[in-house]
Amino acid sequence: MPISFSDSGSLYSQLITRLRDVRDIQSAAAVLQWDRATYMPLGGATARGRQLATLRQVAHEKLCDPVLGEILEQLDGEAQQYPYESDEASLIRVARRDYEQARRVPAEFMARLSHHQTESYLAWAEAREAGGFERVCPYLEKTLDLSREWASFFPECDRPADSLIALSDEGMTSRVLEELFSQLRGELVPIVEAIAAAPPIETKLLQQEFPETAQLNFCAKLMERIGYDFSRGRQDATLHPFTTSFSINDVRITTRTDLHNLTESLFCSLHEMGHALYEQNIDLALEATPLADGTSSGIHESQSRLWENLVGRSRAFWECFYPRLQGFFLRQLGQSSVCDFYRAINRVACTPIRTAADEVTYNLHVMIRFELEVAMLEGKLAVEDLPEAWNSCYERDLGITPANANEGVLQDVHWYAKLIGGQFQGYTLGNLIASQLFETALKQHPEIPVDLERGNFSTLLTWLQRNVYRHGRKFTADELVDRITGMPIHIDPFLRYIRSKYGDLYHLDL
Amino acid sequence: MPISFSDSGSLYSQLITRLRDVRDIQSAAAVLQWDRATYMPLGGATARGRQLATLRQVAHEKLCDPVLGEILEQLDGEAQQYPYESDEASLIRVARRDYEQARRVPAEFMARLSHHQTESYLAWAEAREAGGFERVCPYLEKTLDLSREWASFFPECDRPADSLIALSDEGMTSRVLEELFSQLRGELVPIVEAIAAAPPIETKLLQQEFPETAQLNFCAKLMERIGYDFSRGRQDATLHPFTTSFSINDVRITTRTDLHNLTESLFCSLHEMGHALYEQNIDLALEATPLADGTSSGIHESQSRLWENLVGRSRAFWECFYPRLQGFFLRQLGQSSVCDFYRAINRVACTPIRTAADEVTYNLHVMIRFELEVAMLEGKLAVEDLPEAWNSCYERDLGITPANANEGVLQDVHWYAKLIGGQFQGYTLGNLIASQLFETALKQHPEIPVDLERGNFSTLLTWLQRNVYRHGRKFTADELVDRITGMPIHIDPFLRYIRSKYGDLYHLDL
Repeated sequence: MPISFSDSGSLYSQLITRLRDVRDIQSAAAVLQWDRATYMPLGGATARGRQLATLRQVAHEKLCDPVLGEILEQLDGEAQQYPYESDEASLIRVARRDYEQARRVPAEFMARLSHHQTESYLAWAEAREAGGFERVCPYLEKTLDLSREWASFFPECDRPADSLIALSDEGMTSRVLEELFSQLRGELVPIVEAIAAAPPIETKLLQQEFPETAQLNFCAKLMERIGYDFSRGRQDATLHPFTTSFSINDVRITTRTDLHNLTESLFCSLHEMGHALYEQNIDLALEATPLADGTSSGIHESQSRLWENLVGRSRAFWECFYPRLQGFFLRQLGQSSVCDFYRAINRVACTPIRTAADEVTYNLHVMIRFELEVAMLEGKLAVEDLPEAWNSCYERDLGITPANANEGVLQDVHWYAKLIGGQFQGYTLGNLIASQLFETALKQHPEIPVDLERGNFSTLLTWLQRNVYRHGRKFTADELVDRITGMPIHIDPFLRYIRSKYGDLYHLDL
Repeated sequence: MPISFSDSGSLYSQLITRLRDVRDIQSAAAVLQWDRATYMPLGGATARGRQLATLRQVAHEKLCDPVLGEILEQLDGEAQQYPYESDEASLIRVARRDYEQARRVPAEFMARLSHHQTESYLAWAEAREAGGFERVCPYLEKTLDLSREWASFFPECDRPADSLIALSDEGMTSRVLEELFSQLRGELVPIVEAIAAAPPIETKLLQQEFPETAQLNFCAKLMERIGYDFSRGRQDATLHPFTTSFSINDVRITTRTDLHNLTESLFCSLHEMGHALYEQNIDLALEATPLADGTSSGIHESQSRLWENLVGRSRAFWECFYPRLQGFFLRQLGQSSVCDFYRAINRVACTPIRTAADEVTYNLHVMIRFELEVAMLEGKLAVEDLPEAWNSCYERDLGITPANANEGVLQDVHWYAKLIGGQFQGYTLGNLIASQLFETALKQHPEIPVDLERGNFSTLLTWLQRNVYRHGRKFTADELVDRITGMPIHIDPFLRYIRSKYGDLYHLDL
């Protein structure tokens, strides 16, 4: 057993065993989801939805078992004798949090939710094919009902969004987020306006024909070079890329390619690799416990965005890798300089799709979604009025109107496959945290930019491994950021980064 | 719900729900196994073994739930009012058999077995790399202990092999099989000797370089043409091909290719397709019940062997498809005739590998294994003496000695991944049943050979669908064969087929 606990050995080992069973069933569900998104034939969809619901219900029942609650209660006192950050105290603390949350939610609700999510996802896929919000509207209404029902299990929360936010960003509340986001929006909108008024950057070199197998091969080599371990992971193609973990030694990336757009696979791969580096580098002693996960959606996104943007869209990084990329695509890129490429991959533009957005506008997309989901949960926005509200937010913050529902309200899978509430704040928290962590790493290791130019990632990776990755879920996002940077999560490092980088790129004083 | 039951509706629907949960967890385990054999990175092995053990234990516990036993008991009387072959009576009958079997076996044993199987499989893979039986010997000894422990749960069986045979071939016993196999061996050995003395068939045209992607593409087209539904299945590459079903609408084939041997992918695909046609064509009303499976290993193998051999190695079949195969491999096959090809794919030779054996010698391989596993179970053969015993059986029946353990005792995964006992008889039963069924089909539809020449499979497929596939597990193998052919399983149709086909091919009076 990876975790030892000299006293109360048998009680603690009972805890470990019970939690491991829950985790095994959750991991099995993750395999079934991964297969559904990568290899499953169409015909398999109905049974797969049912199988997932069954697994989730079984896992939920095991997690809510009152015997587990008793074990946790008995261990609580003894956990106090261990340091806060010890494996033992952390496991008992986090398991107790999971237990307290799970036991509020009836297993019957979990199964009902899982069934609905499968149906809703299929309706969304159809709506995107046929191009209509009407197709999903009734499903989304039911999702909103279920999301409120979820919130009703946590009456101690001030606002319905809070229990949903806690699902992925423990410790965060809608009030704190609204404050943070309002500050950020206030700073970002003028920056975006200034850039929009400047001469646009040329991106033609990215819009050529890039054979897709070569794109995947280059991305795989790049990820391996940075530190993603293919003997403990793999890369597969899918429609909506994600990273999934079946154990610390089996963390898989999915990606998508676009024949006519090199940046799709490139930054999608670096993004998912960031998630995967986190999961692959959790301390192996935490394997098969509830600690063997990223601690929050915000911290997870901080890692995907750090590697995608702070590293992957930096000049230093491409000084090293652009010649190699040219080697893969000599005909397409042979004549352009690393400077052209660096500028092209950092073009800022007000476009409708979140996942394709640049670093500057990206958070505006996220904050619109956050605002809309809170409004729906609080009864201030009816589901049927969502497309109109969506479009007016885009007009207000980005000055554009989506051409159709696929470019608008149907673009993200989240509301159609999960719940409404708590789905998006992690993306912006991630951007903020990424900058805050990176700034600290640079302070402690000023050699990092030169390392990147040389394709040497060990200093940065080791720093992240030591400060973030190995801990898994031991610390909340707030605790972790404070431990590392000595400050709470805040917007300044991100804004300093954006102002400096994009001021240079656009010759503006931002 | 696919199955309706007007009386005792609620009790019956409780049964359906409970059995569906069991089935969902078993199907999830099947997905995890499929992934392990196709896409899982090496690092994932340990956790995957544990996850599979957990799923199996949960499924087993649910299947043994005494409440399920009570439901079955209460429904038993009412089931008598339904016709034997009705969905309702069949489900109650088969579920009861599964329940009675499962409840004899402690869940703790299932978990122990699953853990051991994972370790044993890995040791076997290592032994094949490093080429030594010594590496696996201690694992195999433990497997033998576990197999005997399994048998001890069924003290009513005359011999330890019987409870293990019942696992895959319900109704069969070691005594019946020994009698059947002894007759068969007596007839086969002289046939093999006669053919071995005749001038050998030339097979050089099969041993050229055949690009592997083209092999897979041809196989996929062939399977689709015959009737395998790719919208409810897929084909992936693996080391030890198998077919697996996650639902009636998601039945997957795995296959392997050999650059220098066309027959590997060709007959492996047709074989697995036979299994898959069976599973894809089970009546959809039986979905997610224990009836939604092949009824026995013998009947399952009868379908893989029917399509692989009786159809796939027939002259009629290649009259239609050889020109298409030549189209795929013009350089390699352009100059040879369908007659050359037909002769080459039917060459009889005493070679060491079972899965590569021709139709005539194949059953000798199987019967050796059956003999050895019964001997081990009954304490007449020690595991450490297995390689020697293996080799002397091969000398006795086939006149050859394997060059090394990989060509001998290590060639099949079965004993290293499952149990000892009941692992092999299904292959020979399958060959016998395939001939018996095919003879009946030809009697009822004499047009089938001409259909095959025209690439028309509908008569045969419909006949199999109606007589075999749709029933799933409703009937035992004995019942099914008797219903269809009016006779018990016997060796004559197979011997008639072998004598006629190979007499012609070798110009012998067999």
